[in-house]
Parts: sequence; structure tokens; C-alpha cells
Amino acid sequence: MPTAAFGFTVTHRDGAARRGVLHTPHGDVQTPVFMPVGTRGAVKALTPRDLEDVGATMILGNTYHLHLRPGDALVARRGGLHRFIGWPRPMLTDSGGYQVFSLGARRTISEAGVVFRSHLDGRRHELTPERAVEIQAQLGADVAMILDECPPSGIDEAAARAAMTRTLRWAARGRAHVERVRAHDTAILATNPGQAQFGIVQGGVFPHLRAESAARTVEIGFEGYAIGGLSVGEPVDVMYRVVEETAPALPDDRPRYLMGTGLPDDLVECVARGIDMFDCVLPTRNARNGQLLTRHGRMNIKNAAYAEDDRPVDEACACYTCRTCSRAYLRHLFVAGEMTAATLNSIHNLHFYLDTMRRIREAIEFGSFEGFRQAFHRSFSRTAIVP
Amino acid sequence: MPTAAFGFTVTHRDGAARRGVLHTPHGDVQTPVFMPVGTRGAVKALTPRDLEDVGATMILGNTYHLHLRPGDALVARRGGLHRFIGWPRPMLTDSGGYQVFSLGARRTISEAGVVFRSHLDGRRHELTPERAVEIQAQLGADVAMILDECPPSGIDEAAARAAMTRTLRWAARGRAHVERVRAHDTAILATNPGQAQFGIVQGGVFPHLRAESAARTVEIGFEGYAIGGLSVGEPVDVMYRVVEETAPALPDDRPRYLMGTGLPDDLVECVARGIDMFDCVLPTRNARNGQLLTRHGRMNIKNAAYAEDDRPVDEACACYTCRTCSRAYLRHLFVAGEMTAATLNSIHNLHFYLDTMRRIREAIEFGSFEGFRQAFHRSFSRTAIVP
Repeated sequence: MPTAAFGFTVTHRDGAARRGVLHTPHGDVQTPVFMPVGTRGAVKALTPRDLEDVGATMILGNTYHLHLRPGDALVARRGGLHRFIGWPRPMLTDSGGYQVFSLGARRTISEAGVVFRSHLDGRRHELTPERAVEIQAQLGADVAMILDECPPSGIDEAAARAAMTRTLRWAARGRAHVERVRAHDTAILATNPGQAQFGIVQGGVFPHLRAESAARTVEIGFEGYAIGGLSVGEPVDVMYRVVEETAPALPDDRPRYLMGTGLPDDLVECVARGIDMFDCVLPTRNARNGQLLTRHGRMNIKNAAYAEDDRPVDEACACYTCRTCSRAYLRHLFVAGEMTAATLNSIHNLHFYLDTMRRIREAIEFGSFEGFRQAFHRSFSRTAIVP
Repeated sequence: MPTAAFGFTVTHRDGAARRGVLHTPHGDVQTPVFMPVGTRGAVKALTPRDLEDVGATMILGNTYHLHLRPGDALVARRGGLHRFIGWPRPMLTDSGGYQVFSLGARRTISEAGVVFRSHLDGRRHELTPERAVEIQAQLGADVAMILDECPPSGIDEAAARAAMTRTLRWAARGRAHVERVRAHDTAILATNPGQAQFGIVQGGVFPHLRAESAARTVEIGFEGYAIGGLSVGEPVDVMYRVVEETAPALPDDRPRYLMGTGLPDDLVECVARGIDMFDCVLPTRNARNGQLLTRHGRMNIKNAAYAEDDRPVDEACACYTCRTCSRAYLRHLFVAGEMTAATLNSIHNLHFYLDTMRRIREAIEFGSFEGFRQAFHRSFSRTAIVP
């Protein structure tokens, strides 16, 4: 049962690729969309106006980090995440599960949920499907995610099945609890009455597990559906295959979100397989490490070859960084350890991602997505290092 | 002998305070002016557009840092500092002396100049009055400074005299050498034909030494004059006294620059004593340490009292940070160690400084500077901690 303010409309199709609009309480989002990651209430090294300038329309916040600091109750008392961080546009929060599962020895998983110790102060916390709903309701993003079990890459079928079936049981609990929150049947301070909840498909690399997970998650019923458990180390062609098999098993009238992916060519390939929403830390993390993305591939800006290179990072790029700065200057700032390097590099990389999404959307509208896709791959290589 | 493109006009006077315009090859600067410090070719944590947004019209670059990395010859081959860093407006470079003298055991001073070892790689460098001219000619800022001997605070009169007389001899050498550079009588690649050169008055806290230094520096003749050797640890009333005694000894038709000062009330007090130009790292350094400046005094944003404070840092402030962010959010970002905190805090502090200068200029224009000055001190206290 979609909430009043949330919805999704497919406006154009081109093969399996979809061009659509996500309607949220904080405005519409043109899809396919890439969401920059604002882990702790800020996309690292950027201000909200930098984000608007690069064309971000929807961003992601991390529930685990915000729950620990400053705390979701504090955020709720501030009126929710949008008001707290000064970002009036759409947002999505993850469930916190991915970070909690990454804690290794610091967490214990049971049917009830996950008990973990904070990476900040070692204090004990519990994350259950119900708590994940409540924390996200207090944060008040436009899309909340169910708590899922995120197994590592390379597990066998039995382990993948166990994680998948537990995710289904957690999804049912999460869905039941969100209905209680929506009915004001809890003590928590929900800050976004129009918040949607997305289910997550698990099942590792096993087609029949993915199929079962998709069917039973859809049976529970959510405003949108995510494909989880990918981009965790599996080969890229396996990831593409799982997306190709799973996306068509999800309802045509609901948004499909591929979590945590990926490189620019992954975005193109997964749009081709029917994905509408993406997020990934790569553009900003790489930026802080001096790795810039261009039409042709990657550029390590600290390379001595750029010391006297007066060209912009990408001559075809219209971002602020490329309009203002040479490779020589960006290299100098990076080598000198200036914080401004992280800002300028992040602006460029995010602009590249978001511009790629703009071009994808345009190609689908014009029915020329397949031509765009081939042209993109001819120009861009994930392994190429730009000279 | 001023160069063609450089000049200074006093447009209004109010007591000893002057309202003027500095004409430079990269445009006019309204004075009194505060110059944010872009140590290594960037004002830390900010982009050029952030600087324009806060109202910066002229910024400072550090010759010592830029000479070591990326190197002034490299910058000259890029067309000079303005083009290299993407800042098309006026700039000033210091001589590098202040940083070199701060190296302590890593430097040796003689009449020829200073031999020092780089803080980056230990390599030996020499900074002479002539080299300081050449390095700055290659960087190509609109104002270059002579190399002066910067003695520490608290020295006796003999030591102050020695540093002052050596500064005079170095000033004469620097002036002679800049004439050779302007006549294209050197091998270096000067990137700004309209670059001005400022002399520096030394003499510690001793009135007769300051008077002698001022008279003999003016005798050599420069496009502008700086007061150096202050804000190095002396009491603030001593600093004000030295400025009050020295400024009138400098030519009325040349800009007067007080180096490395200070807190906002210092700017007001030194404008009252006839200063036209200021620079200081305090607003940006304090910002990175979480110390924000407001109309009323200082605010340590990490203070737990701000955790749930939804007000902006300063309700009367029109900066981007105050228009967008609450104290609660800024505290969260600072405590979480987000780089965005440094950016947002720097925007606020620089805006506060630059807005103070705007108000100073307006007050002088309207002949109401003394009223402004009293109102400023009634509101702002350098020791007050905002609750």
C-alpha cells in the first residue's frame, strides 16, 4: 500500500531500460537516478549547494552512522534529516544492516536481529527489523529500507538460502512494524508521514534463490524493491546476470534499486537490465584518493605526468572543477594534501556520474539507449588509465 | 615609481581612517580590505567560488610554500598564480621570510640572506632579497613584498635595531632588483608586468626605531608600505600603539598594510589608526578548529550546549552557512570529523571578517566610523564565549 505522497511512474521504455519519475514528499526525482552517499549527514567534502550544482536530486544517508551519532531521536527532535542537514530534496536511508554486518567480531546475529558494539565507543546496541524501521522513521528520509541479512561474497547455496529466508522473515516483521508506525501505534517520533519502505531481494548468485526471494518479497508488498547482496566482490558479469534475472521478477510499476553499485559502466549496464535507482561511495571515495573518472576511464591525479598539464580533467566536462581548474592545479592541491582537492575532485566525479545518468535518461526518452550504450562502452573503459 | 596598472586612491576620510580603492592589474579592491590567506594556492577547505561568495576581493598566497611546491617556475610556465589557481582577482604574495624565519634550527641568517632546509624534504634552499623578488615575479601576484628580517617578540632594542637596519639594506637590494626585473634585465619569467612591490617597516616596539625604519623605507620608495613584526606575541595595546605611531609616518597616497593581524576588533582599531589592508589565518584556522566568530564573540561549536540548538551560528549573519545550517548540524559535522565542517565554518568566519570590512567602509563613507567603532566594541568581545 503506497503512502499518499509516494509513487512511481514509468514514462518511457527502451528495451528493458525504463525512464520514470519517483514522486516523493520532497519532490520528484527523474529516474534512472544515481544517489550520492551522505554517510553521516554530509556527502564528504561537499556542501548542499555543491550537491545541487552537480545535479544531485536525491541523496542517501547511513542509518548506522546517524543512529550512533548524533542519534535518530536527536534528528527527529530537529524535524528530521532533511531539516537537520539542510537538504530539502528527496533522501533515502539504508537500514544500517550493511555496516553492522561489516563489524565482524563486534556483532552477533540471531533470529531476533543483530547485537553489536559501536565502532565509536564500544557501547552495546541492538538492531532488529523493528528498530531499523523506527530509527529510519525518526530520520524521516523519503525512502526507508528493510533490515536484511547481508552475507559476504562467495558463500555456498545453503548459507545464501539461510540469509535469504531470514531476510524474508525480517522483511515481514519490518513491514508489519512500518504499518504500526504509520498508524501511530508506536511511541516514536516519525518525521515523514509520506515515507516509503523498500524490500530487499537477497539470494546470492543463485538464480532460484533470487527468484524465490523476489516472489516472496513482492508477496509481502513494498513501495519499491531493491536488489541487495551484489557488488560485494563477485565478478562483474555475475552481478549483471543476477540483475538481469532478478529485475523482471519485480513489479513493473514499482522502482527498482540496485544497492551499492558501481562504476559508470555498471550503471549503464544495469539500467539496460531494468534498474531505476543506484547509490555508491566510489565517486566520492575515489575523489578523495585522487582518482578521477573521465569519459575515457580513470585518472590518478597525483601522477607526475599531470604536473604541467594545463588541460581540464575532461575537456568535454562542464563541471565547476573542469571549468575552473587544470590538471596541474588539481595535482598540486592533492600532493600538498589540501582539503580543497577533495572538494574539487568530488565535484568532478559526482558530476560525471550524474551527467552519465542525464545522458542515459535522454537516450531512453529518444529511444536511442542501445546506441548510447555502445557509444559509452567505446569511449569508457573501467580499466583504462587516462594518459 | 608606481607601475602603470597599480595605484591607490583615497576616496573618503574619517579621522585617521581611510576609505580607498586599490587599482591592480586584476581589478580594483575597495579598502580597507581583509585578504583571506591561501597558503599553498588555496584558501583551506574552500573553492574559488566559495571565496567569491563570502565577498573576498583579494587573497594572499605564501611564497615559501609555493616556491617549494609546486615551484614558482612551474607556476610561471602555467601563466602565473592567478591562472594556475583559477582566481582572476587581485592577489598578494608575502616574501617567504616569515615562514623561513620560523624554521628555527633549520635556517641560518647572514647579510646575504637566509639558507634553510625545506620542511618537506630537507633540501637546502637560499632566500635572498633578490630571490624573493624573482620568486614573486614568477608567481605574478599583484603585490609582492620585500624580504624582511622578522625577529621574534620580546627582543631588546639592539636586536630590534639590527633586524630593522638589515631589513633596510635588504629592502634597497630588493628594490634595485625589482627594477632589473621590470627592465627585463633578468632571466626569470615575470608573469605580471603590473606587479607592485611593498616595503616593510620593522623596529619592534621601539618608537624611534619604527620612525627611522618608516622614514628610510619611504626614502627607498615603494608602491605601498607594510608594518611588519607585529601580532607576534606582544600585548594588543602595544600593537595598537606601534600602528598609531607608524601609520602617519607613511605616505598618505600609498596603501598601508598591517601584516598578519588579527581578531575582528583589531581590524576596527587599526583602521581607526590609518591601516588599509589586512591578512590573517585566524578566521580559517579557527574555523577548522571549530571556533566560530559572531557579533558577540567566539563560539566553540563542539560545545555540547549546541547539540540541540536549531539557531544559526549568528542570527544576524547572511552567510551561506548561517542561511543553511543550524548550530546542532555544525556541531554534529565537527564532532564527526566531516571535512564539510571545515568548509562551512570557514565560509562563516570569512564572511564575518569580510562583512565587518564592508561595514567599516560604509561607516567611513558616511562619516560615522567613530559611532560604528563604539557600537562594534559594545557588541563584540574578543574574550567572550557565546553561550
